[in-house]
Amino acid sequence: MINIAIMGFGTVGSGVAEVLTKNHDSIARKCGEDIRIKYILDLRDFPDSPFADRVIKDFELIEKDDDIKVVVECLGGLHPSYEFVKRCLLSGKSVSTSNKELIAEKGDELLQIAKDNNLNLLFEASVGGGIPIIRPLDQCLAANEVYEIAGILNGTTNFIMTKMIREQMPFEQALKLAQELGYAERDPSADVDGDDACRKICILASLAFGRHVFPSQCYTEGISKITLEDVEYAAQIGGVIKLIGRCKKLPDGRVTLMVAPTIVMRSCQLANVEDVFNAILVRGDAIGDVVFYGRGAGKLPTASAVVADVMDCVKHLNRRKYLFWEKGAPDYVADYREWETSLYVRASSFDAEAAFEKAKEIFGEDIRRLHREAEPAGELAFVTGKDTEIVLMQRMRIYENSGCSVIGCIRVCDL
Amino acid sequence: MINIAIMGFGTVGSGVAEVLTKNHDSIARKCGEDIRIKYILDLRDFPDSPFADRVIKDFELIEKDDDIKVVVECLGGLHPSYEFVKRCLLSGKSVSTSNKELIAEKGDELLQIAKDNNLNLLFEASVGGGIPIIRPLDQCLAANEVYEIAGILNGTTNFIMTKMIREQMPFEQALKLAQELGYAERDPSADVDGDDACRKICILASLAFGRHVFPSQCYTEGISKITLEDVEYAAQIGGVIKLIGRCKKLPDGRVTLMVAPTIVMRSCQLANVEDVFNAILVRGDAIGDVVFYGRGAGKLPTASAVVADVMDCVKHLNRRKYLFWEKGAPDYVADYREWETSLYVRASSFDAEAAFEKAKEIFGEDIRRLHREAEPAGELAFVTGKDTEIVLMQRMRIYENSGCSVIGCIRVCDL
Repeated sequence: MINIAIMGFGTVGSGVAEVLTKNHDSIARKCGEDIRIKYILDLRDFPDSPFADRVIKDFELIEKDDDIKVVVECLGGLHPSYEFVKRCLLSGKSVSTSNKELIAEKGDELLQIAKDNNLNLLFEASVGGGIPIIRPLDQCLAANEVYEIAGILNGTTNFIMTKMIREQMPFEQALKLAQELGYAERDPSADVDGDDACRKICILASLAFGRHVFPSQCYTEGISKITLEDVEYAAQIGGVIKLIGRCKKLPDGRVTLMVAPTIVMRSCQLANVEDVFNAILVRGDAIGDVVFYGRGAGKLPTASAVVADVMDCVKHLNRRKYLFWEKGAPDYVADYREWETSLYVRASSFDAEAAFEKAKEIFGEDIRRLHREAEPAGELAFVTGKDTEIVLMQRMRIYENSGCSVIGCIRVCDL
Repeated sequence: MINIAIMGFGTVGSGVAEVLTKNHDSIARKCGEDIRIKYILDLRDFPDSPFADRVIKDFELIEKDDDIKVVVECLGGLHPSYEFVKRCLLSGKSVSTSNKELIAEKGDELLQIAKDNNLNLLFEASVGGGIPIIRPLDQCLAANEVYEIAGILNGTTNFIMTKMIREQMPFEQALKLAQELGYAERDPSADVDGDDACRKICILASLAFGRHVFPSQCYTEGISKITLEDVEYAAQIGGVIKLIGRCKKLPDGRVTLMVAPTIVMRSCQLANVEDVFNAILVRGDAIGDVVFYGRGAGKLPTASAVVADVMDCVKHLNRRKYLFWEKGAPDYVADYREWETSLYVRASSFDAEAAFEKAKEIFGEDIRRLHREAEPAGELAFVTGKDTEIVLMQRMRIYENSGCSVIGCIRVCDL
């Protein structure tokens, strides 16, 4: 029998206890060991919980108990998660965590400590909730040189975009609905501003390319500026607007990555991913395109991924799995503006025709004008040809200085 | 350094050698060992191959060489693959195979031998080509009770159906094109008749539910009878016809499975899987729906899955992974006709109106009539309500005896 501890008894933590109890027998059969929850660390009390008797408030009880072989971290946030996980590893306990912020900020350091102590630090649940992605990327696609990953990594924003696209629901109203349904926090900024997706693409980039990428190195843009007009124009070129996290390996060995609302063509597998679902597209030299799709959040999906990691830790006590990446570096991440893209631009001008002619002068003859129903006079939308963002943004400034006020612009994805 | 042997130097076997060579350094880094191809077993000679010097014709050289720790089986077919793989395991060598027929027919026996000898028998490439599915099902979803799997498991038939749906290309012509493009064999029966998909769903069912299911236990129906008229009627109810392999766990512990052309609603993730791509939908009690998408065949995708297994074998020498299932049994698989479904029925009669009234009498008032452009007089198509196939087929016989000749019928999927 293996004793484990759960740190944090919130949504995911209580889900972990629920899955371990509900599927106890098949889990025991599959990993050849009985798994017993000995401690649950939380500052709150849970008098009505069946696990009430295991709830403790003192972390040291876990740290000092050699009976505990595996610790589940579901506290979230960076502190005290970081300190606790570090101390668990230093005291010889493998760790399974769902904490994306922790792995995105401290993954390289913690993986090194795990390696030095021949322990496992697993985090399948940190990206894509219950969707298997970390292990497949590390093992199943190991024979590939993965060179690009693009994904819908945040269910809340995808739900909001789906409502805007399918039901022409304005952003604010869709956000409110997401909050009512419990998909979005009262403070939705981490989702809406793209921070959550940023942490996830950083973890995927670190794992796929072998060196740590920090959230501070990832250009991140949220969806709060997206309007129904943008959605309508995007549809006109056969696209939908999605919050996409992308990373790419460059020929010189550096990586480039970003999180931003992006117009994705309907023909792309990511375009059909709706509501709170997530999907991750992985490109490898041998495999070509692979897509992983499922619920990116939610109590039980996330918990099932954590428990799968716990089972893996139990099967690999005193024998590390190879999940690992090297320390990061400032010059490892290239300027995202070197990325080639085309832009959807929406502008207003007293004379749309003249403004379009001006746009042709500045962006080139190959720009394509878009129209929508009931288009107000003076509104203009077009898609530019492909170029690096540096060049496109220069032209954008020139264009604005020429008297056209740009209302918004969105990258058009060439996936 | 680890020495391996490759049995069978056809498409997949040569792909394995190519991937191991092309990505040699990163593979060595990832599994902490240099992997060297010592032998290639094939009856043919390959004088122009860079591996010409390793080609042997005598299996015993591999069997008797204790230097060989891992053997790759890409011979295909049941014999001599079965005998060779068995002898490899009995002589202490782990095996990675892409051979679905071998695993579907002999998996339980070979897995037992691997277990008894503390060796690994891995077969990620046997289902979904390069798509990670075996390992995720075994590990990532291990905390779930998986209760249903449905998939587009054969790229050739999916290519044909896509041509029929997108371009109204008749079956025979689409098949011919698939052969010209190298997607279909000169004898296409294994693909077109569903045998290939049958083997794959058997492997998935065996792994997900823990006991061996044999191809002979799986009701299998091919796509050769599907017409453009069927495609047109299916579109009218918002569906597309796909060759779907499905398996389900029943409350009484038995399983039911089948491979058959099925009308899938456009809203289902499987409906948007086109051309030679495969997709596998897995349903678990905690995770909900997860979909794995990618190239189900092809030299390099399949080879990359085989090589990933080789790397896993190398990382786990003398330490089994838990991939395993129990022996099968005749009474373990329930009659597929107990499965509830609704049916699309196409019939002809001198008087379509009367035939529809008759259909209502026999199938019930809730049947829905379908129409298509330029529908010839006397043609009738409708969708029945949901019931077990046993009941529906009885009604079908009664209907035919009432003077309506049924041209075709296709199950409508409730995924």
